[in-house]
Amino acid sequence: MTPYSCMTRDELEAAYTQVLSQYDACKAQGLKLNMARGKPAKKQLDLVSDLLNVLQTPEDCFDGDIDSRNYGELAGLPSARAYWADVLGCKASEIFVGGAASLNMMCDIVSRAYTHGLLNSPRPWCKEEKIKFLCPAPGYDRHFQIGEFYGAELIYIPMTATGPDMDMVEEYVKDPLVKMIWVVPKYSNPDGIIFSDETIQRFANLKPAAPDFAIIWDNAYCIHEFKGDYVPFPDIISMCRDAGRPDMVFEFASTSKITFAGGGTSCMAASEANIQYFTGVFGVQMISYDKVNQLRHVKFLKDKAHTLEIMKRHASVMAPKFECVSRWLNQEIAPLGFAHWNDPKGGYFVSLYTMPGTAKRTWQLCKEAGVVMTNAGATYPYRKDPNDSNLRIAPSLPPVEELEKAMEVLCLSLKLSALEKLLEKL
Amino acid sequence: MTPYSCMTRDELEAAYTQVLSQYDACKAQGLKLNMARGKPAKKQLDLVSDLLNVLQTPEDCFDGDIDSRNYGELAGLPSARAYWADVLGCKASEIFVGGAASLNMMCDIVSRAYTHGLLNSPRPWCKEEKIKFLCPAPGYDRHFQIGEFYGAELIYIPMTATGPDMDMVEEYVKDPLVKMIWVVPKYSNPDGIIFSDETIQRFANLKPAAPDFAIIWDNAYCIHEFKGDYVPFPDIISMCRDAGRPDMVFEFASTSKITFAGGGTSCMAASEANIQYFTGVFGVQMISYDKVNQLRHVKFLKDKAHTLEIMKRHASVMAPKFECVSRWLNQEIAPLGFAHWNDPKGGYFVSLYTMPGTAKRTWQLCKEAGVVMTNAGATYPYRKDPNDSNLRIAPSLPPVEELEKAMEVLCLSLKLSALEKLLEKL
Repeated sequence: MTPYSCMTRDELEAAYTQVLSQYDACKAQGLKLNMARGKPAKKQLDLVSDLLNVLQTPEDCFDGDIDSRNYGELAGLPSARAYWADVLGCKASEIFVGGAASLNMMCDIVSRAYTHGLLNSPRPWCKEEKIKFLCPAPGYDRHFQIGEFYGAELIYIPMTATGPDMDMVEEYVKDPLVKMIWVVPKYSNPDGIIFSDETIQRFANLKPAAPDFAIIWDNAYCIHEFKGDYVPFPDIISMCRDAGRPDMVFEFASTSKITFAGGGTSCMAASEANIQYFTGVFGVQMISYDKVNQLRHVKFLKDKAHTLEIMKRHASVMAPKFECVSRWLNQEIAPLGFAHWNDPKGGYFVSLYTMPGTAKRTWQLCKEAGVVMTNAGATYPYRKDPNDSNLRIAPSLPPVEELEKAMEVLCLSLKLSALEKLLEKL
Repeated sequence: MTPYSCMTRDELEAAYTQVLSQYDACKAQGLKLNMARGKPAKKQLDLVSDLLNVLQTPEDCFDGDIDSRNYGELAGLPSARAYWADVLGCKASEIFVGGAASLNMMCDIVSRAYTHGLLNSPRPWCKEEKIKFLCPAPGYDRHFQIGEFYGAELIYIPMTATGPDMDMVEEYVKDPLVKMIWVVPKYSNPDGIIFSDETIQRFANLKPAAPDFAIIWDNAYCIHEFKGDYVPFPDIISMCRDAGRPDMVFEFASTSKITFAGGGTSCMAASEANIQYFTGVFGVQMISYDKVNQLRHVKFLKDKAHTLEIMKRHASVMAPKFECVSRWLNQEIAPLGFAHWNDPKGGYFVSLYTMPGTAKRTWQLCKEAGVVMTNAGATYPYRKDPNDSNLRIAPSLPPVEELEKAMEVLCLSLKLSALEKLLEKL
């Protein structure tokens, strides 16, 4: 195959005619496939079914002297706090165990910062002339959405191969109105990047002008390798403590992609002072989160070592899907030289960079042929991809057979949109 | 026994000496008893243990075509919405099923009203010069706490035998800054009053000046009879619809006192327009609440009729405790004529009115003798009981043997504080 950039106009026209006819043939099949969200597959949910049966009797429901079935223990069951401390590498006293969704706690943090302020806030954020959030992108659309909901100005920070552009981050945090940065530090959503040690150290060393600047460290994929062994990752909580700003970071994790996405448990890790502050704040809205489910998870997952074994089983379901994505892109697109993508070893996404100016069109072509992808642009603040180039592929949900079909459609759509662009057909 | 009001000073002095010596003897036993919060007893938690075993296999986790284990269905599983509609008497489309705590949703409603406004708000409440909440009292301390947290002015509305003083309510809602009223309409916390039909109709007929005035209808004890049969209760959602203000009411219920207080499920009932609005708002913070637990509850509780059978089993544990409270007060205090209390047939509390000016002192005496009660004053806005008279007795948690001891201490403390007052010993 000749790269598109080396083709003559006639060759491009010929390629266009051929691809269009292949695309039309695909479209005629009336497919209905979904690669839009990072949902676990049924197979993955099935392989943790023992979670349903670890609590069977009243005696099973006790965590030491504590009856998980009754009110109390707002910060979480002691065993659940210890479990998450083991997974994340911090202290149990630095853990607050929440409900089914870590996103809910992130939103609560912003909501309470807005109306009341964080631990070190001079005033509630709603009393500031404005607030600004740093948004490394491509990133997680739901992070950006929370910032937008609370009226923060979202500032785009480009991602590099080692994490966010830290020169820019260090420059921006000199502005006292910059209050937050949102990151997924391991297998970033969607790029699948593991932040480098240097990047992480620079995060811990940040000296923001705002005394209440907060890093939202969404460690959603902290143990989510699907290829190769577990990659150890530093504990940001102790690093910020050592660097002298212990209250600057809020880390989040959950079992949404370890057990059940629709019935897991989540945690926040932060300085002991922050845990104490937010236990008070959350005490207004809650008597206690679901401790029965916390205990169910602790008894099933046991500890980090055992959880990593379970993650190997997830990997066995996930790996073939990522291999399928890789194979299609490498065979069909790589030789044509107009697009590139990452090749992650963990997380839930493949980040695809189309020919600039064609991501939206590619998304549209996929949709018309029955393949739903995450909206083009969704991975950028205000849904505006400056290059109209990034698409997030979420291959976890469909079975491999369906994925093969979806990737065929995606590859044809990629080619077609690139050829349209080159031939200025739009 | 002679009522204290008929005693001579010498008789009062003699009574004081005798009661003080009995109290000191009790105190010397070094008791450690708790009647502070409405926590279910272990026996009650044990009798719903089958809840733990209704979901055992992957197939069990489906609600029709929907896999409860995966993301989605933010407003709740269809079966869970139908279940709550059956219990509350509204439509399934008027139900949003949440997480473990209804309080969390109430707080979310206020939080979002404060920062963004409700469906019919002209502006977010934080942009109003001030906001005011009507607080029928004695009432639920956690309701008042949410209002206080968001800086609302809490206005005390006296409770009557048929519910809040509706003349006052109707008068106050003419003020456009009055944005909310918080009530527990059935077996009110702590008085155990069932609002009369007339009171409920007057609620539905309210014509508040604020277009976004909201009734928080916390139906926490909607099916919680412990004496006698289930008492039918009107559906406030359809009543507000019929009265022409469908969006004015938010009703809440939960299984915290049906299954597990520390691992139940909750719901909000409201107009379809409100459910739609808040599904959007909650969509910022959540992908979905714990649907596995929703399904677990639906499979265990089945429907309203079956749930009422389970409530009969709870009643068999609860009734002897309320009989114990009643017996002690009737035998030891009634003849002395200085205090009164309610005699509820459902709910979780007995509301006790001490001699005015002695509730705090009674609480203190109980505490010093090892019996923890809900803080005196807690049942009023700003924790200020205008008469220093109300104490909330929460007899559900301790076994009857312990309760006997605790009631002995309470009765002695009541007598002692009354005698101190009459003899002006303080």
